[in-house]
Amino acid sequence: MKSLLSIIILFCSLFLKSQEIDSLKLREIYDFNLQQSNCYENLRSLCKDIGHRLSGSKSAQKAVEWAELLMKNSNLDTVYLQQITVPHWKRGDVEKVYWKNINGETIDVNCTALGGSVGTNGIVNGEVIEIKNWSQLEEFGKNKIKGKIVFFNRVMNPTYINTGMAYGSCVDQRHSGASRAVEYGAIGVLVRSMTLKFDNIPHTGSMSYADSTKKIPAVAISTVDAHNLSEALKNNELKYLFMELSCKQLDDTISYNVIGEIKGQEFPDEIVLVGGHLDSWDIGEGAHDDGAGVVQSLQVLETFKKLKFKPKRTLRCVMYMNEENGNRGGKHYASMVRKTGEKHLFALESDRGGFSPRGFSIDGTKIQLEYLQSFEKLFKPYQLHVFSKGYSGVDIGPLKDGKLCLVGLIPDSQRYFDFHHSKADVFENVHKRELELGASAISSIVYLVDKYGLPENKSLKK
Amino acid sequence: MKSLLSIIILFCSLFLKSQEIDSLKLREIYDFNLQQSNCYENLRSLCKDIGHRLSGSKSAQKAVEWAELLMKNSNLDTVYLQQITVPHWKRGDVEKVYWKNINGETIDVNCTALGGSVGTNGIVNGEVIEIKNWSQLEEFGKNKIKGKIVFFNRVMNPTYINTGMAYGSCVDQRHSGASRAVEYGAIGVLVRSMTLKFDNIPHTGSMSYADSTKKIPAVAISTVDAHNLSEALKNNELKYLFMELSCKQLDDTISYNVIGEIKGQEFPDEIVLVGGHLDSWDIGEGAHDDGAGVVQSLQVLETFKKLKFKPKRTLRCVMYMNEENGNRGGKHYASMVRKTGEKHLFALESDRGGFSPRGFSIDGTKIQLEYLQSFEKLFKPYQLHVFSKGYSGVDIGPLKDGKLCLVGLIPDSQRYFDFHHSKADVFENVHKRELELGASAISSIVYLVDKYGLPENKSLKK
Repeated sequence: MKSLLSIIILFCSLFLKSQEIDSLKLREIYDFNLQQSNCYENLRSLCKDIGHRLSGSKSAQKAVEWAELLMKNSNLDTVYLQQITVPHWKRGDVEKVYWKNINGETIDVNCTALGGSVGTNGIVNGEVIEIKNWSQLEEFGKNKIKGKIVFFNRVMNPTYINTGMAYGSCVDQRHSGASRAVEYGAIGVLVRSMTLKFDNIPHTGSMSYADSTKKIPAVAISTVDAHNLSEALKNNELKYLFMELSCKQLDDTISYNVIGEIKGQEFPDEIVLVGGHLDSWDIGEGAHDDGAGVVQSLQVLETFKKLKFKPKRTLRCVMYMNEENGNRGGKHYASMVRKTGEKHLFALESDRGGFSPRGFSIDGTKIQLEYLQSFEKLFKPYQLHVFSKGYSGVDIGPLKDGKLCLVGLIPDSQRYFDFHHSKADVFENVHKRELELGASAISSIVYLVDKYGLPENKSLKK
Repeated sequence: MKSLLSIIILFCSLFLKSQEIDSLKLREIYDFNLQQSNCYENLRSLCKDIGHRLSGSKSAQKAVEWAELLMKNSNLDTVYLQQITVPHWKRGDVEKVYWKNINGETIDVNCTALGGSVGTNGIVNGEVIEIKNWSQLEEFGKNKIKGKIVFFNRVMNPTYINTGMAYGSCVDQRHSGASRAVEYGAIGVLVRSMTLKFDNIPHTGSMSYADSTKKIPAVAISTVDAHNLSEALKNNELKYLFMELSCKQLDDTISYNVIGEIKGQEFPDEIVLVGGHLDSWDIGEGAHDDGAGVVQSLQVLETFKKLKFKPKRTLRCVMYMNEENGNRGGKHYASMVRKTGEKHLFALESDRGGFSPRGFSIDGTKIQLEYLQSFEKLFKPYQLHVFSKGYSGVDIGPLKDGKLCLVGLIPDSQRYFDFHHSKADVFENVHKRELELGASAISSIVYLVDKYGLPENKSLKK
């Protein structure tokens, strides 16, 4: 009886000891990142030395070289490129939307072509019909829509607390508006920008055509312009609207995922992945989307290096290419993992902006979810409180296989869509400490997963 | 046995029903505020039509009139002013700090006089001695300090996750630096600005003298200037530093707390108070500090009005005067409560910036704390997660009597000290949704406290 009690006491004290060590390690990770992190300066360099970097562009190639050099300078054990083929869409010099009112006056509209749109090949002009939901499209039918420009003006719902939900409930009109409207004979598409802010800044983003023979131009307009246009239509003040876009789709081209690793000391064949996407839209600087995610991801490996933590498993940072308009990087990476049979234990993506972190969205088995939730109390001093089941991210999504645990960093969402896909997504709008707190949070969870492994994986070794 | 079971089932279903009703009411409060709140436009008006409003200034008087009119326009049941006497400190036109290096070059320093400082009465100049903590002051002693300007350069610790803690551990050098240094014969004081940001913006704030006969001028300098000055001292590059300030203390003057109420329907004599402070420092616009708090507080009453909620208890919004440099408003309000014996049940203050709300800091009895914590799950959909024991706020602090429950709204703290007491604290740096989410959070907790009362108060009526 006595010896059983001793064993129990020993176990409890070992458990408490380990908790205490973890708590100290997390403190060390946060202290380091809040005082000596490189991630803010790395983001400045990416935003200011490279700037925006749409797949296929020269600056995307420069970003690949920048990332490779940065990883090499971090003295990672391995740094390599993974070649992929990416779409190459190019915004033209001409990007104009304006309308004439019944008095013959011209009203200019703040606009930006949607990524993937065809150009107008001259000027497209016509009457405008406003649509708020898909059923209206059907109601109006070919009779009313044919020959007109369709204006998708569904507003992002401000009552969603998580702005990502508001985005998710609206983005279909941007993505599929043109391909749906063309079926009713539309000649062009305007889409209200995906933002909760009421301002003059248009936000681009991806769209695609369902049918390669029926392509009509599609352009985003600012929320203020969308409001004004809607009012003008209501008051019968709008006569014709004019669109002129010189954007075009070029041939696919070669690009790369950029990958860096620290080899694991005990289980080098088990990968713990952390990543974001290196490409961005071609306006602004891709600071929050997703410069923040790539510099934070690299910062995880930097943290291990600088604090002389020797990972048990192989830590891999992946800077994906082409998340914005094709996800070719994420898909190719996953297909290579399937081909080579590389054992991935855990993958974490940061792609929701460099804001004050709130927690993690976990896409794994029930046991993995509960296991990660058991770490929640370690994060309480750092004000992380979300450890819930949910979607991880676009780049790591294709890795999903029912066994691997996928996780997305969840920052505060209130400001993200103020900047997302617009000229306002610049370095100056990222807050140093918030970025560093995000890097600390993902470094911490990677530290714990590396140390303890994860349940429901054959190779779990505590 | 059967009837007991029925009673239990009835109780459970009533309990669940009430939870469901509360959850719907909170949803209604949030929906209203995220779609139709006035608080952002009210803040714009306070910042742009009035601007900064230091106690005793003309603009503070304008702010009192503005607040009274706003409350009257909100059709509150009662609106009145509570007269107080406030200090009147005036920044002068001259505000200059510069130093000469060994090559005779002049280096200008970004500075702002500390509130309460005497002027320099001409130019004060001398050598500079850098101090990082109080014990250094003692170590150097009169021998080294006499006739010099003391430069307090303790850095806000970036490893605190809550930036308020970092502020709290540094602000003593601003507040007491001059009165401590003068004991060693110092002729002036420079204080590193209280911010975690490394930039050129100086931040003012209150200071006071322990001894009315020994007053030396005190000025804040930006963190970049503090860094440069420290480097210059280290490298023996600084010869003399010059200070010229024309600020002065004028006679006390009359001002007011502005108070508005909705009368309670069942217990009109029980007060549920919500407030912030109307005064601000005399640079910037006092947008986060504390324009946000006053417009959010009024928004609580607006929410009840517009949603036609009839409060059981009397809801009172107090816009306090003189939080920044004397807290005369808060102290006088509390003394009047003691004098009249007015029964206060609950007081909530919003004075930590208009950022994304995280929860509440509760200064009450153990039972009150646990009682408020029982509401935490109702706030989970709104991402509030802090319901912990802690300090409430400066204005409501004097009400503390061991029975009354005091609460502070806790927003995300990362950005607050970027703006606090500086020219950067302007309307443009407040985020509409974040401000509205804060107003929703305090409206919600006031709704619950009004409905259910609070334990450990004689008049608790559920």
